[in-house]
Amino acid sequence: MTSGDCVETLLKLRADPDATIWLDLQEPNEVEARVLSEVFRFHPLAIEDTLQDYGHPKIDTFDDHVFIIVHGIDFTRLNLEKSLDVFTLELDIFLGDRFIVTHHGDPAMRSVADLRKDVGEPGHRPWTSVRILHRLLDRLVDNYLPVMDGIGARLEILEDRIIHDPEPDLLEKVLEAKKSIQRIRRMTAHQRLILESLARGHLELIPRESLAFFRDIYDHFVRVADLAEAYREGAQSAVEAYLSMSANKTNEIMKSLTQISTVMLPLTFIAGIYGMNFDVMPELKWALGYPFALVLMAVTAAAILVWFRRRHWL
Amino acid sequence: MTSGDCVETLLKLRADPDATIWLDLQEPNEVEARVLSEVFRFHPLAIEDTLQDYGHPKIDTFDDHVFIIVHGIDFTRLNLEKSLDVFTLELDIFLGDRFIVTHHGDPAMRSVADLRKDVGEPGHRPWTSVRILHRLLDRLVDNYLPVMDGIGARLEILEDRIIHDPEPDLLEKVLEAKKSIQRIRRMTAHQRLILESLARGHLELIPRESLAFFRDIYDHFVRVADLAEAYREGAQSAVEAYLSMSANKTNEIMKSLTQISTVMLPLTFIAGIYGMNFDVMPELKWALGYPFALVLMAVTAAAILVWFRRRHWL
Amino acid sequence: MTSGDCVETLLKLRADPDATIWLDLQEPNEVEARVLSEVFRFHPLAIEDTLQDYGHPKIDTFDDHVFIIVHGIDFTRLNLEKSLDVFTLELDIFLGDRFIVTHHGDPAMRSVADLRKDVGEPGHRPWTSVRILHRLLDRLVDNYLPVMDGIGARLEILEDRIIHDPEPDLLEKVLEAKKSIQRIRRMTAHQRLILESLARGHLELIPRESLAFFRDIYDHFVRVADLAEAYREGAQSAVEAYLSMSANKTNEIMKSLTQISTVMLPLTFIAGIYGMNFDVMPELKWALGYPFALVLMAVTAAAILVWFRRRHWL
Amino acid sequence: MTSGDCVETLLKLRADPDATIWLDLQEPNEVEARVLSEVFRFHPLAIEDTLQDYGHPKIDTFDDHVFIIVHGIDFTRLNLEKSLDVFTLELDIFLGDRFIVTHHGDPAMRSVADLRKDVGEPGHRPWTSVRILHRLLDRLVDNYLPVMDGIGARLEILEDRIIHDPEPDLLEKVLEAKKSIQRIRRMTAHQRLILESLARGHLELIPRESLAFFRDIYDHFVRVADLAEAYREGAQSAVEAYLSMSANKTNEIMKSLTQISTVMLPLTFIAGIYGMNFDVMPELKWALGYPFALVLMAVTAAAILVWFRRRHWL
Amino acid sequence: MTSGDCVETLLKLRADPDATIWLDLQEPNEVEARVLSEVFRFHPLAIEDTLQDYGHPKIDTFDDHVFIIVHGIDFTRLNLEKSLDVFTLELDIFLGDRFIVTHHGDPAMRSVADLRKDVGEPGHRPWTSVRILHRLLDRLVDNYLPVMDGIGARLEILEDRIIHDPEPDLLEKVLEAKKSIQRIRRMTAHQRLILESLARGHLELIPRESLAFFRDIYDHFVRVADLAEAYREGAQSAVEAYLSMSANKTNEIMKSLTQISTVMLPLTFIAGIYGMNFDVMPELKWALGYPFALVLMAVTAAAILVWFRRRHWL
Repeated sequence: MTSGDCVETLLKLRADPDATIWLDLQEPNEVEARVLSEVFRFHPLAIEDTLQDYGHPKIDTFDDHVFIIVHGIDFTRLNLEKSLDVFTLELDIFLGDRFIVTHHGDPAMRSVADLRKDVGEPGHRPWTSVRILHRLLDRLVDNYLPVMDGIGARLEILEDRIIHDPEPDLLEKVLEAKKSIQRIRRMTAHQRLILESLARGHLELIPRESLAFFRDIYDHFVRVADLAEAYREGAQSAVEAYLSMSANKTNEIMKSLTQISTVMLPLTFIAGIYGMNFDVMPELKWALGYPFALVLMAVTAAAILVWFRRRHWL
Repeated sequence: MTSGDCVETLLKLRADPDATIWLDLQEPNEVEARVLSEVFRFHPLAIEDTLQDYGHPKIDTFDDHVFIIVHGIDFTRLNLEKSLDVFTLELDIFLGDRFIVTHHGDPAMRSVADLRKDVGEPGHRPWTSVRILHRLLDRLVDNYLPVMDGIGARLEILEDRIIHDPEPDLLEKVLEAKKSIQRIRRMTAHQRLILESLARGHLELIPRESLAFFRDIYDHFVRVADLAEAYREGAQSAVEAYLSMSANKTNEIMKSLTQISTVMLPLTFIAGIYGMNFDVMPELKWALGYPFALVLMAVTAAAILVWFRRRHWL
Repeated sequence: MTSGDCVETLLKLRADPDATIWLDLQEPNEVEARVLSEVFRFHPLAIEDTLQDYGHPKIDTFDDHVFIIVHGIDFTRLNLEKSLDVFTLELDIFLGDRFIVTHHGDPAMRSVADLRKDVGEPGHRPWTSVRILHRLLDRLVDNYLPVMDGIGARLEILEDRIIHDPEPDLLEKVLEAKKSIQRIRRMTAHQRLILESLARGHLELIPRESLAFFRDIYDHFVRVADLAEAYREGAQSAVEAYLSMSANKTNEIMKSLTQISTVMLPLTFIAGIYGMNFDVMPELKWALGYPFALVLMAVTAAAILVWFRRRHWL
Repeated sequence: MTSGDCVETLLKLRADPDATIWLDLQEPNEVEARVLSEVFRFHPLAIEDTLQDYGHPKIDTFDDHVFIIVHGIDFTRLNLEKSLDVFTLELDIFLGDRFIVTHHGDPAMRSVADLRKDVGEPGHRPWTSVRILHRLLDRLVDNYLPVMDGIGARLEILEDRIIHDPEPDLLEKVLEAKKSIQRIRRMTAHQRLILESLARGHLELIPRESLAFFRDIYDHFVRVADLAEAYREGAQSAVEAYLSMSANKTNEIMKSLTQISTVMLPLTFIAGIYGMNFDVMPELKWALGYPFALVLMAVTAAAILVWFRRRHWL
Repeated sequence: MTSGDCVETLLKLRADPDATIWLDLQEPNEVEARVLSEVFRFHPLAIEDTLQDYGHPKIDTFDDHVFIIVHGIDFTRLNLEKSLDVFTLELDIFLGDRFIVTHHGDPAMRSVADLRKDVGEPGHRPWTSVRILHRLLDRLVDNYLPVMDGIGARLEILEDRIIHDPEPDLLEKVLEAKKSIQRIRRMTAHQRLILESLARGHLELIPRESLAFFRDIYDHFVRVADLAEAYREGAQSAVEAYLSMSANKTNEIMKSLTQISTVMLPLTFIAGIYGMNFDVMPELKWALGYPFALVLMAVTAAAILVWFRRRHWL
């Protein structure tokens, strides 16, 4: 379709009072930018935020439409087995009375792809724009929970392993996880507010009878935000556990060193004494001098070991 | 009873203006799902939240009923002797003017079981639905306090033991307790808001004269939430105590090592000197050379011990 | 007085429009429970909270009276010399237009005892119930300040001692103090809100011209709450100081060990060399071989000490 | 002046509709207490707060006057060179339509003294009471900034020195500074609210056209409060830096010990071998046995040093 | 231009109802101070805040104009390669209906310089004062983002390097960065509120149709403030990582020391035994005594190494 054709088709659809348009843009080119400004007459700033990555969720109300940016899990870059780094994908939504325009950087964005299967290819459809919005957000939010659970499970394993052996590479992984979780937490804090304003009926576009559905999405997302907060505390706990277990390990190592030194130094000292070259050293002349020295050493060692046991060091 | 019978009986009861229904579902099957949707005409989303575990407390107001999820202690999985892990059990409540439908995963959920004894088997009863709600919440909240006290007592013991001997398995227990307490704290934060909205009279279903009873429940739960917060601080304190006591233990061990080294190394050195093979070493020829060396060692050791005492190291 | 007499007398007094009743219960028995419910017709839940320890401050408004729980210092169990553990005592107050009923577990509760001296034995009196409430709260709050100052002074001493010698028993005391202070802090946070609502005139029972007096109490209590917060920070600081000073002590001990090892090991090594039994070792034949070895050792030790001084380790 | 004269003169002035009175009390005696109560008829509680140190900033509105307590820097006890301990001085202000009564413990309180120079000795003056209040607060707040800057500069130096050498006396100074800063921070938090309520026009005594001046004072004080918060974070950072640098120092010391031990122990061992008294030890007979042993030691030492360098330990 | 000329010209322009004035002052001298007070009749306090550095962002509303202080990045002092110290430059703005007066200490302030290029030299222009304000703030805020990204990238590198080798100079850099970030964070917290009040339409000077543009600026700045918060957490994490990695390094060093001591001390002890001078020591007479001793040593060393491996210490 040429640029002109496309714009014209859409303008016709826009004029049709019975048509609901869902336009899903993936990499907006000039034609699509023209569509946004000429067919839908969106605000230049909203279009600009669409054409480039904006960075965090927001909602902007305009005269006849709403501009929403939400973030979904970026499943393409997700591999919890290897790293707890979780990235999110921006989904820009223009919601109008009888149209919904979506834009996302990744053509495979799961929540959109899933919905496309449900409603067939985009175009005319009996669904209202609010219903499409609801289904999009519903899937997008639902996709968070398994990922959050995965993070929680991995974090649990990491902390467990730290308690049993505080290896520095475990700390590195926990610090990475903490960073990733803090990123998610900041994002969820913003997104939560947006979903709340949808659920509270602040937007006139959403009819009262649909609010329960958006409240449901909001409730689910509160849970996601809650888990993000919990995992942040968990990661912090794991860092503290690392420090504590390291201190413990230091003590273990120090104890070994102290034990070996405390046993060996006196023995070596006794050997040193009988290694002295004095002309007059009676023990050296004894027939049983050597066994005597060995017994002396054994007794000393035994005494030290008993003393260790008394101090609960063995 | 067949599915149809059951639905019909309930529909008849629903129609009877003098009947109050308490329906207690344990593992909702298809029949029960039909009851929820056909007899009571609950919102599909609320039914969905009931059929599966939702995860955290919430309250949703619908036209003629309220949907409440609260959490009670899961006594089946509770064993404070062995672990401070406390799990909660979801109780889903649909409260209407003349009916109350409850659902809980565990048939033995204590607060519900207790109440069943009081009111006999469910069915027609002179109690109003609000009174049943009040009694349910009252027991559910009351069951928290002994558990919280148990956690507090165990935590106290753990911290005490840590201060006297910072063993790593104590730290592990404290970290586990902290995690469990944080879970409870997050849950109580949500549940508190729900009980508050009941106590504040936000629900029209609860008559003004009953508010004092719900305020009482709320006040008790505030205390639970307060204790959860206090124990979180306590667990954190215990972790810090562990770190401090570990540092202290390190110092104790280091001190031993330093003492033994500081005493033995100079003595061994003296023995080493008189173990040298120089042709001309006057001391070696002395008749009292050996006793002299031993005395020299004893004096050296005494001097070091005096120096230790001066530095308050012994 | 028999139960019936007592109830009758009080009912008569209640009926007298000129009488103000102050009833001070210490260990409510059945008679007194009857009085509360039959003479004053208090809410059963409030009576229940009175008969047993409730746990934290609260305020409940009823139709013709207010139910207030405040906490005062428990002087019987206070011994700041020995421990910073501070316990509080519950004072339950029913405030009506022309009556005030107080209850406290300890007959010697200082604020009540003081006031009783002022107003003579309870019974008829010209004081209004609000004036009695004001005087009770005034004394109760004033009793906090010397205790808080005592805690502050002890905490200061503890931190000072920790900085000069981080003994583990100091840490134990600080951790105990921290726990006690956190308990006070949580209680003051609740109590502050209650005094604020009295000072803000939320209760119709308190006439506008008396508000200044309650604002004064509130201002004093804000100071108590402020100090509780400050001491919590102070206790936390002391714990951190302990950790830092322990680290410092570790370094001091380690330094000693390193110094002694660094000086003795090379010397012992030199002695070891001249203790070797090679047939051909020219130094051993030297007339001044032994002094040479001693000088070599002295020079080595001196060099090491100079090197220490250069690294600012001595 | 006798007590009676004084009271009479002031009563006359009070009656004069054109007179504005500024009365500056320094150590209120009985006469002055009488003046406060008889001439100005202040509330007994406010007079009580004036006669004794109250402790923290507050504002109380009465029918025809306002009672304000603000805190200024106590320059007499300030010596930032020696310690970061900053104390504040209470300034009690009664502000009326045509009078302002100030009280401060220290006669030399700088902000008041400065203003007295400007307006000559207290008594009749063309200045309105609000203008005097503004000038007082203006100076009082302005006096904070150089002190705060001084604290900031000292803190910076302390942290710098800690990073280069974590001496325990530096930690002690930082902990002291932290305590002082926390005290200031708590006070500024209260004072800020008071200045805000003046700037927001909550007091009817302050005419709308003067609000800009009080807003200016408020803005300056926000900066003071901001710095207090910043320095608290800074002091905390310094404590953490101390801990980190101590850990670093431990490592440095440990490294030295490990290096010296790792080099000397093997050498001493070799010397020990050739110090053994076996009848048959071929090396001992070698003409070059001794140099061989020395070379063996040198090679061993070199190998260890190379291994150190490989592990980046030298 | 003489002072009089300048003032007159501006007065004429002020009187012209079609003219919009943008006056950009760089180092206000007396003439300019006269212009501010005589031509524009600004409030003396606002002029004072302009003539000297004020310190943090603020907004003040006057009758016919608004006084705004915002902070932009000081690019002249920015060199992220060398240090993460970021300074900000004050931009004072007087915004009126038909005029905008800006003042900034650095003539090269980037956001102003950029805009000057766009609109040519200051003077008459068709742009409204609000549009100039918008463009100024837009550029000023946009200049933050690359700087924040730079800080984030450097911080990431620092933390990475700390995890691999906790050098004290890295800690120093992180502590410096933390201080700088905290400064930015405090400033952004204030500036954010100011931009929010512009975006929310609190100023009558900004027409409703322009609000979207200011909302856009606000949204961008929220992101800056968000990043500042994130980096503060990041810097804190890096400090904690340093501590943890130091503890780890201590363990590594200690392990080496323990290993070498545990291996060498027993060997030296064996050598010491056969260095004793007893007359009767059968082993010394054995033909294979020496090899026997060496084998004994080797076996001992091997046993110790095996024991190490068992404890996962090698």
